[in-house]
Amino acid sequence: MKIHDISTLIHPDMIVYKNKQDKKPVITVVNDYSKGTSYESRALLDMHVGTHMDAPLHMVEGGSTIDKQDLYKCVTDCKVFDLSHVDEKIKMEDIEKYEINEGDFIIFKTRNSFSTEFDFKFVFISIEVAEFLSKRKIKGVGIDALSVERDQPNHETHDALLRNEIAVLEGLSLKDIKEGEYFLISLPLKIKGAEGAPCRAILIEK
Amino acid sequence: MKIHDISTLIHPDMIVYKNKQDKKPVITVVNDYSKGTSYESRALLDMHVGTHMDAPLHMVEGGSTIDKQDLYKCVTDCKVFDLSHVDEKIKMEDIEKYEINEGDFIIFKTRNSFSTEFDFKFVFISIEVAEFLSKRKIKGVGIDALSVERDQPNHETHDALLRNEIAVLEGLSLKDIKEGEYFLISLPLKIKGAEGAPCRAILIEK
Repeated sequence: MKIHDISTLIHPDMIVYKNKQDKKPVITVVNDYSKGTSYESRALLDMHVGTHMDAPLHMVEGGSTIDKQDLYKCVTDCKVFDLSHVDEKIKMEDIEKYEINEGDFIIFKTRNSFSTEFDFKFVFISIEVAEFLSKRKIKGVGIDALSVERDQPNHETHDALLRNEIAVLEGLSLKDIKEGEYFLISLPLKIKGAEGAPCRAILIEK
Repeated sequence: MKIHDISTLIHPDMIVYKNKQDKKPVITVVNDYSKGTSYESRALLDMHVGTHMDAPLHMVEGGSTIDKQDLYKCVTDCKVFDLSHVDEKIKMEDIEKYEINEGDFIIFKTRNSFSTEFDFKFVFISIEVAEFLSKRKIKGVGIDALSVERDQPNHETHDALLRNEIAVLEGLSLKDIKEGEYFLISLPLKIKGAEGAPCRAILIEK
């Protein structure tokens, strides 16, 4: 069994959405060896920091929450498509060569995985592709961006996915991952009532 | 594939170690549908809240951190032992009937899984058993207590396990889990420099 860790490292200086300071994690050490016999810390985490999963509530009023996430959509076969050549957004023409079936979990590797700072022009999933994936009844979609959309006041990409209970996995780190089929494990923290949660995500080579 | 979720639900009123108020999660909603078109929240989490994994640094000065956790010890076959009859602590006589081999991941189900409030007399792992498991070179140990030890000023149980890089998985919820062999997935958040981290943990029936 070969495990690939596709989670981003959580730390106070990590890349956060639009560089918003209030989205940066705050780590507090409450006990260490200068004061006692153990080390203890806490973290203030935005639910969309680093590698994370969105629940419908994030973009759908009254939508379901991350503690109710169907884990069979989180622990599943998946297909990684290498779209590193795409510049602006993932369009229908970029995916037409791939076979996409009902129940698939699709992960898009893009040039985002190579960014070393927040890119305001990050590659995202076009509305057309989100609607296509939703009609195709896929199980989930993953991307190496902190959001599946950008510059959409009405959040159409998120909406097409979340309204259809498609698992949305964001903030992946895919630099070293080759296109192909893997077994995905992406487990969000079980936070009651939350609209998403940080995840540890791995790929296992099949 | 049958998945059993063995993670405890994270919420502000959950059971925390010794009922310490400052260990309770604080969830803050920063945006909702009364103010905008999306829902966003944050959580302040103690690294030992609910289901979590300890890294050696938690009890060993200079020990390694959770972001360096060997994931092959987190995604592995495991054995669940039902020790629900044990009253105070898990002793050698409680485990002598089981086969425990090098590389095993052992999970102890105890009466702790049935507690509805913090039990100051929770069942823990005796020093003798921790030292035995460590000499046997197991890969990891899990328990349905918020700590593998209690009332040990020198943390001998933790020390015997963490000093030998045995994965320590705490805060499991095992009420509905039967004794037997499973495939364990317990993935801690990848928090830089932390002495532990919250986990989502599941068992897959073999």
